[in-house]
Amino acid sequence: MGIGALNSQIYKRGYVTEEMEAIWTERALVARIFDVEATLARVQSDLGIVPADAARRIRETAKLSDDLIADVESGKVGNPLVAVLDALRSRVPEECRGWVHYGATTQDVLDTARALQIQRSTELMLAEVEQLIGQVSELSQQHASTLMVARTNGQHALPTTLGMRFARWLAELRRSRSRLIDMRGRTELIQFSGAAGTYASLGDDGPRVSRGLAKALGLVFEPIPWHAAADVMAEVASTVAIHGQTLAKIAEDLFDMQQTDTGEAHEAVDAHSSGSSTMPQKLNPFTTMKTSVGARLAAGMAATVLTQPPASYERDHRQSEVQRDLIPQIYVAVEGASAKLIDLLGRIHFETEALRHNLDHEGVLLMTEGIMMALAPRLGQEGAHDLLQTFAAAHRSTGVSLDDFIAARPDIAGRIEGIDIAGLSQPQAYIGLSERISRQVSGPER
Amino acid sequence: MGIGALNSQIYKRGYVTEEMEAIWTERALVARIFDVEATLARVQSDLGIVPADAARRIRETAKLSDDLIADVESGKVGNPLVAVLDALRSRVPEECRGWVHYGATTQDVLDTARALQIQRSTELMLAEVEQLIGQVSELSQQHASTLMVARTNGQHALPTTLGMRFARWLAELRRSRSRLIDMRGRTELIQFSGAAGTYASLGDDGPRVSRGLAKALGLVFEPIPWHAAADVMAEVASTVAIHGQTLAKIAEDLFDMQQTDTGEAHEAVDAHSSGSSTMPQKLNPFTTMKTSVGARLAAGMAATVLTQPPASYERDHRQSEVQRDLIPQIYVAVEGASAKLIDLLGRIHFETEALRHNLDHEGVLLMTEGIMMALAPRLGQEGAHDLLQTFAAAHRSTGVSLDDFIAARPDIAGRIEGIDIAGLSQPQAYIGLSERISRQVSGPER
Amino acid sequence: MGIGALNSQIYKRGYVTEEMEAIWTERALVARIFDVEATLARVQSDLGIVPADAARRIRETAKLSDDLIADVESGKVGNPLVAVLDALRSRVPEECRGWVHYGATTQDVLDTARALQIQRSTELMLAEVEQLIGQVSELSQQHASTLMVARTNGQHALPTTLGMRFARWLAELRRSRSRLIDMRGRTELIQFSGAAGTYASLGDDGPRVSRGLAKALGLVFEPIPWHAAADVMAEVASTVAIHGQTLAKIAEDLFDMQQTDTGEAHEAVDAHSSGSSTMPQKLNPFTTMKTSVGARLAAGMAATVLTQPPASYERDHRQSEVQRDLIPQIYVAVEGASAKLIDLLGRIHFETEALRHNLDHEGVLLMTEGIMMALAPRLGQEGAHDLLQTFAAAHRSTGVSLDDFIAARPDIAGRIEGIDIAGLSQPQAYIGLSERISRQVSGPER
Amino acid sequence: MGIGALNSQIYKRGYVTEEMEAIWTERALVARIFDVEATLARVQSDLGIVPADAARRIRETAKLSDDLIADVESGKVGNPLVAVLDALRSRVPEECRGWVHYGATTQDVLDTARALQIQRSTELMLAEVEQLIGQVSELSQQHASTLMVARTNGQHALPTTLGMRFARWLAELRRSRSRLIDMRGRTELIQFSGAAGTYASLGDDGPRVSRGLAKALGLVFEPIPWHAAADVMAEVASTVAIHGQTLAKIAEDLFDMQQTDTGEAHEAVDAHSSGSSTMPQKLNPFTTMKTSVGARLAAGMAATVLTQPPASYERDHRQSEVQRDLIPQIYVAVEGASAKLIDLLGRIHFETEALRHNLDHEGVLLMTEGIMMALAPRLGQEGAHDLLQTFAAAHRSTGVSLDDFIAARPDIAGRIEGIDIAGLSQPQAYIGLSERISRQVSGPER
Repeated sequence: MGIGALNSQIYKRGYVTEEMEAIWTERALVARIFDVEATLARVQSDLGIVPADAARRIRETAKLSDDLIADVESGKVGNPLVAVLDALRSRVPEECRGWVHYGATTQDVLDTARALQIQRSTELMLAEVEQLIGQVSELSQQHASTLMVARTNGQHALPTTLGMRFARWLAELRRSRSRLIDMRGRTELIQFSGAAGTYASLGDDGPRVSRGLAKALGLVFEPIPWHAAADVMAEVASTVAIHGQTLAKIAEDLFDMQQTDTGEAHEAVDAHSSGSSTMPQKLNPFTTMKTSVGARLAAGMAATVLTQPPASYERDHRQSEVQRDLIPQIYVAVEGASAKLIDLLGRIHFETEALRHNLDHEGVLLMTEGIMMALAPRLGQEGAHDLLQTFAAAHRSTGVSLDDFIAARPDIAGRIEGIDIAGLSQPQAYIGLSERISRQVSGPER
Repeated sequence: MGIGALNSQIYKRGYVTEEMEAIWTERALVARIFDVEATLARVQSDLGIVPADAARRIRETAKLSDDLIADVESGKVGNPLVAVLDALRSRVPEECRGWVHYGATTQDVLDTARALQIQRSTELMLAEVEQLIGQVSELSQQHASTLMVARTNGQHALPTTLGMRFARWLAELRRSRSRLIDMRGRTELIQFSGAAGTYASLGDDGPRVSRGLAKALGLVFEPIPWHAAADVMAEVASTVAIHGQTLAKIAEDLFDMQQTDTGEAHEAVDAHSSGSSTMPQKLNPFTTMKTSVGARLAAGMAATVLTQPPASYERDHRQSEVQRDLIPQIYVAVEGASAKLIDLLGRIHFETEALRHNLDHEGVLLMTEGIMMALAPRLGQEGAHDLLQTFAAAHRSTGVSLDDFIAARPDIAGRIEGIDIAGLSQPQAYIGLSERISRQVSGPER
Repeated sequence: MGIGALNSQIYKRGYVTEEMEAIWTERALVARIFDVEATLARVQSDLGIVPADAARRIRETAKLSDDLIADVESGKVGNPLVAVLDALRSRVPEECRGWVHYGATTQDVLDTARALQIQRSTELMLAEVEQLIGQVSELSQQHASTLMVARTNGQHALPTTLGMRFARWLAELRRSRSRLIDMRGRTELIQFSGAAGTYASLGDDGPRVSRGLAKALGLVFEPIPWHAAADVMAEVASTVAIHGQTLAKIAEDLFDMQQTDTGEAHEAVDAHSSGSSTMPQKLNPFTTMKTSVGARLAAGMAATVLTQPPASYERDHRQSEVQRDLIPQIYVAVEGASAKLIDLLGRIHFETEALRHNLDHEGVLLMTEGIMMALAPRLGQEGAHDLLQTFAAAHRSTGVSLDDFIAARPDIAGRIEGIDIAGLSQPQAYIGLSERISRQVSGPER
Repeated sequence: MGIGALNSQIYKRGYVTEEMEAIWTERALVARIFDVEATLARVQSDLGIVPADAARRIRETAKLSDDLIADVESGKVGNPLVAVLDALRSRVPEECRGWVHYGATTQDVLDTARALQIQRSTELMLAEVEQLIGQVSELSQQHASTLMVARTNGQHALPTTLGMRFARWLAELRRSRSRLIDMRGRTELIQFSGAAGTYASLGDDGPRVSRGLAKALGLVFEPIPWHAAADVMAEVASTVAIHGQTLAKIAEDLFDMQQTDTGEAHEAVDAHSSGSSTMPQKLNPFTTMKTSVGARLAAGMAATVLTQPPASYERDHRQSEVQRDLIPQIYVAVEGASAKLIDLLGRIHFETEALRHNLDHEGVLLMTEGIMMALAPRLGQEGAHDLLQTFAAAHRSTGVSLDDFIAARPDIAGRIEGIDIAGLSQPQAYIGLSERISRQVSGPER
């Protein structure tokens, strides 16, 4: 039971994978808190702060128990850390109790636990980016020479190849990967310096414990508290959302190709899952659209994180809570979109016949830039442009062919003799390097 | 179990009331769908379209059953309407089946069910606005003459009364009420015209059925389909979010008054619920801050609704899903904030002593505008302003009193004889109409 | 010279009309400040506060002078009000000087001057909404029976008429008008109660002066200061931006209809202004797209206003400055879009032939809901739906006709004898009330 | 003359530096276009495509002329590139004309010109980040041991040092620098592959020309067109805006410290520029607030860029125009904030006395965590926490001292003998590593 598409039992499987959800459930949060507490005991034992035996007992005890999880999930427990600490303390021997959570601050443990969740989420996302790059590379090779019309401003512009469109997606996905990798060093940060970030409760050992804990957990050591900083969560939010927008660009291209009016692709032929209850013929591109929806929701949430007012002074519950609400949902929405797209690319069908049919929609008009380039040395670029612009208007209103149009202008006809207008009127004559680039770019990475 | 603060078992009770949640659960959606289907049968029977007996049987059967709800809540059912229809059809006599959902379209029923949820949510919100207006009116009367410093740009500006601050809140709450009321006629709309809004499946009776259904459900009749319009959900989102921002303004004023450095109010003395696990002395204004958080989340979501690209053509799943996700959450977040604020206003304590102490913080400096006004007839407004600005600088650096400062300037002193500087230096001399307006505005409404 | 599309000499005429720009220039601000100061003197004279003669001299002097404007426009003047006051005071006789700006506060005059700018902007916008309603009504009448395909989720859904699409626009424009009218009473507010809103500098006469000033300027009297409220500017921003989104919905529908692949409309045939420098055949729908761009910019800015943190205490320069920056630009962007759309609707050409051609794109498939409704009484709704869904799949893969498909199923064929499948396969058979509603809705208003 | 704070002659100098403005004026755009055209000729000449002499003539002619600029600035010219090309072509000898803009596409030149503007803007911003890091490092050293209260949730929390607050700013500024540097490789991209990105007009030499042009201009070579990608401008917008939010965090900390109620810092004592026209004593922290305003505006604009719907197909004027409007303004607003902050940090005064006074505001209460830590070994952490929480409540209501409170509880008193409560009650006893970290972090960079 939940409010909103990402949490409603009815709607959530359209947007959320079990894998990413599992990183952010209450259960997972409790597990990460245990990880932090157990690792802390070990690190402090290695540094000679906590007795080895106590650390061992704490590590053995710091495990998820179904009772505890049930309590947390039922909402009986307000602060999950308090429940974890109570559970831990009540199960270790009396003499170990004082060493549980030793010198630690609640908020630090929660922030570090979340850093672990962020790390896992980014890793899952990166694995899927690799998968998408693989899929799109293959498509780009496969369709390197599949002719297609390129459209700008909704208008047929020039011939190109389908592979070239995939090459664009590829370049964008690779930048996304690079961005996600760069962000890791600035966002998978340990937070372990006490209530005011002064290490006052940890004493002189503070930085050593913090550094050791970071290392053991696989996080970046950052000695300065970052929880009241404006930038860390804003970078997570915007980088993940930008990746979402790249997925949305791909999905929107696919949506446009699947319109009845273009018919250049079809995501599935399963009338049951994508049909309409009233219109028997309808096949809706739901997977494509849901990819967009996830990305849109994430972009909106990232905008909210990005525009939050700064935290007041050394810590501000208002800022933390907004981030605590939105960061998980941004990951969940974008990774859901990413999984949808992986599924979609594995089964979408590109209609080469429709691609060709649409390419021919405007006939020779599509080729006018190419013809202009060929005529330019004879007529000047401006002259050639004007000639073909005039022709385009005439062709649209009367249907006159280019041959007849030129024949009616002997002054022009005389100057362009020997130019193979018929050949230049074929789309393949003017696809430039589309094919070559589709192949190169999608080959082994530079 | 859920992702994000509004859905997490751990965090949601900090933000979400059971009352508003109950309007938007899966169970409630199913109940509203039943309402629409049962009412439809009755209206069609009244119009002689559906046999009276069939309509009666449908109405009797259209009730929530626990089995059905369990299925919906478990996520087994993808489209809740399909489940409802299956349940209905399987439980009415064979000969009635054809009259279930007669001439209706799935999306229309879902949109109309949501209009009912929107209606209930707005009504709940309006009831709480009345309550807030009542509370703030009472506070305004009570503190009409409680002296306080007015601050602009973070600086002490002029004396005022606490009642005057409440009067501002009141004016804002009343505009919010007026806005919510105005929006009802444009947002509690029936949607009942078929898959493309042409009434094709409903035939000539279409508009009569639609009008009758609207009337019976208490919704506004709108013959033109609005589900692909940009404006309806955008108005809901922004009007509710603006109300949230009004709640946030109140909460932020209260946050600022509760800072240790001002100490002008305290939300509670319960160290258990608002304390810190590490800092024994801490009393955090959590109710105040959570009011702000709810409003911030809602404002962010409303911004997302407001900036969505328009729906494509006659309907667009991408737009609908974004709205279906966010509209419930916006209501839930703002009403949660409203309930928090009602609770808070019922128990917050205003510290009149601290208010007075802060009022005196800058002593005579706070009174310089008033003194300037009194001196202006003698020295000219500009002359008086310059004199007091110079005095303010001198007082800040040397602590010189106004009397001594003037005494040292015989040219001035001679011209202002008879003016009661000492009297003008008392804050109550310059509170203008604060008291009168606090009382008037919070009295019986104009 | 300016930064950004709304201010760049190169780009601004694509987005900004001279009429709306003229409301918001520095010159206009100065003129509105003069209006406020002159009117204040008159009101105070009527109330016996300011001598009649002084008020008359102030009114005569409170006029725009080119020198003053040049100074303001050159940026030499930091605060325009200071310049205006200096100019006024230096030009009235010595004995009148003290009555200039009597009892007034700088910020109040600036806020009230802006309220006047808001009023003019809203009035201009409303006049254009009327014009749009007129244009769209005419189009709706004209094309009430022009057949067209309705699309949902990018897929051909059902037949409809072009008039019906216009009817949707009309309903949305009318709601926008209603919203703009409702907002006036909450946003065209006088602000005239002194630095802290206590009327301290105005004395007991304060509210009477404020009320008189409001009346004389045509503004709403609001005794409580609203400049630190969250709601007033948020309502202006979101209401205007929602209107922009309605314009964008219309523009996006027109963009989609103008795609080469649909060809259902064309905004112009002027190759010079909408062509490409490289592709001679290109005719870009720039007016359509610029309408969208204006609306998108406005929506983004409104989101920023809506999500601003509340003002601190009694006034907050940070909030005011953000609003002072964005409110003018939101009006400018949306009114620019509105003017573009008026221009566009006056010259766009709808291609009835292409509309018909696209309607026939999927042939009988488009008619399957209608046929299903006709078969349902014989086969049951479910049976009819399944039959036609199976047919649709078969038709798509083999091209089989509906007649042949049914003939191959004697069990079905026998049960549907006498049903005019051929007649039902014609689009006009299933447009429902499209024509009737197009005419009714666009007739004299209800 | 302009609309909005960043363009208004009246307001813009509060937000915009001449240096950044100069990067984005119409004049600068024309200059960058000339740079691209001249460099293109040279690169093509080096590759043997364009005759060396023609290239030389083009380079010599490709210079800003006042006439041309006047035309562009007056708005007479719609497309600045057309004006530049006309100017170039009319001034080179007849035989060179054909080599001007050879094989190039208008949009590519405009996009590449903008990449150069982005590059300069990022470089300027980075230079200022270095300056800020220098200033804050110095402050951190200087105030490493200046005692201060750390506040969380608006409440006094623990003692710390002012240097520690600066250390936080420093860490955030350094992450900002790292983010800006990382983004350069993904955003300073050449765009040079023709109208559909296929190099069709450039032929086989295309990639060589593009690579050579990138190298000569100092841009990154990207063979795949990126102008319709979702990510590039979104990364620019969000990275710059996040930097803005870091500046805003610093500004908000300074705003809070400058409140009359805290008085811990003062930005200036110049009553003339930061005073009020009505309240003689007011000193408003305008520089501080304007830093915040710039950052807020930029964050809002970045949110708009981030949430834009993807471009349609191969290019989309709607997306480009939104980016063309906002990217310059985001840089202008954030760099303006950065310059304001540099100025502010150079002259703000920190009031060590007030810092100390505020630190003592709650007396021993502030020290309760430290005392608890010292008592914990004797009383258990829980016991110590409860004792001090009870004490805090008692102290607040009755003013009882800790000594007396303990003395009244002999059971406790007996167990904590020998603990130096008086010493622990001094703030310096519990600043942890504040001083050490302030010094280390602001020392030579790690």
